[in-house]
Amino acid sequence: MAECPGGESKLLVSKIREGTVIDHIPAGRALAVLKLLNPPRGARVALVMNAESRKLGRKDIVKVEGVTLTPEQTAAVALIAPKATINIIKNYDVVEKRRATPPRTVKGILRCTNPTCITRKPGEPVKPKFKLVKEEPVTLQCIYCGTIITQEEIVEQLSGQT
Amino acid sequence: MAECPGGESKLLVSKIREGTVIDHIPAGRALAVLKLLNPPRGARVALVMNAESRKLGRKDIVKVEGVTLTPEQTAAVALIAPKATINIIKNYDVVEKRRATPPRTVKGILRCTNPTCITRKPGEPVKPKFKLVKEEPVTLQCIYCGTIITQEEIVEQLSGQT
Repeated sequence: MAECPGGESKLLVSKIREGTVIDHIPAGRALAVLKLLNPPRGARVALVMNAESRKLGRKDIVKVEGVTLTPEQTAAVALIAPKATINIIKNYDVVEKRRATPPRTVKGILRCTNPTCITRKPGEPVKPKFKLVKEEPVTLQCIYCGTIITQEEIVEQLSGQT
Repeated sequence: MAECPGGESKLLVSKIREGTVIDHIPAGRALAVLKLLNPPRGARVALVMNAESRKLGRKDIVKVEGVTLTPEQTAAVALIAPKATINIIKNYDVVEKRRATPPRTVKGILRCTNPTCITRKPGEPVKPKFKLVKEEPVTLQCIYCGTIITQEEIVEQLSGQT
């Protein structure tokens, strides 16, 4: 961290050697994304909320050192932030840009909100499974009971607020 | 948010007109501090974890727009981050620097960890009250039952992990 020349209250977040920068996160969802990334103890993390964005009006950004997203994490990020760009940093440079695209089917990450759904019954070996019915805002449907899971419910579940 | 010249993966966090910057937070406690500040919806927030620091080795920094700390918030920040510096920003400049000093007595913010303490009994009109017995790490003692509250327990309670 260093001050940028001429900027008393500017924060300049230093470069990371290896890690991930997730940009264009819908405003207000950075903490939910950070939670999914689960950075290792001691990792440098930078998080900006409600930054100005030409595309989105306002956006959040999360930068974490030492985290390379697994396919499950990428899917989960896409469910919270369907327009996000994922930049993979290696040796201080962006070596890969991915787009967070919500997967067509979602298994295991979320639970059905219908308490009588078979996937919620104790003792039933049926794992929750959803199909994507809308990309923006992300909307899922339980393949067993047909319950619709909204974007807000997805963010709530994935940020551990339930 | 803008890129700083010459830095592909640097984040430059733009200035805020009014707000608070809390620097020298012990590494790993930024999210707990952010939770205490409870920034208004839509406020610009920047958070850096595990930045390099000459004083602390590693430190966290939190910057929030539109938040001026109440005395209760200042006390709570001091309990989590006893060495933090609190900079108040007005009109893009730092107009006041405060040091987060743990208060000598703490009322109402925390609860006693002893489940049989009188302050935990339903129906008893006795509010929790602690005296400061050590500043670094912050250690408190319940004035009713003598139970010691450690720094870790304070951080846990104030970041809502209990």
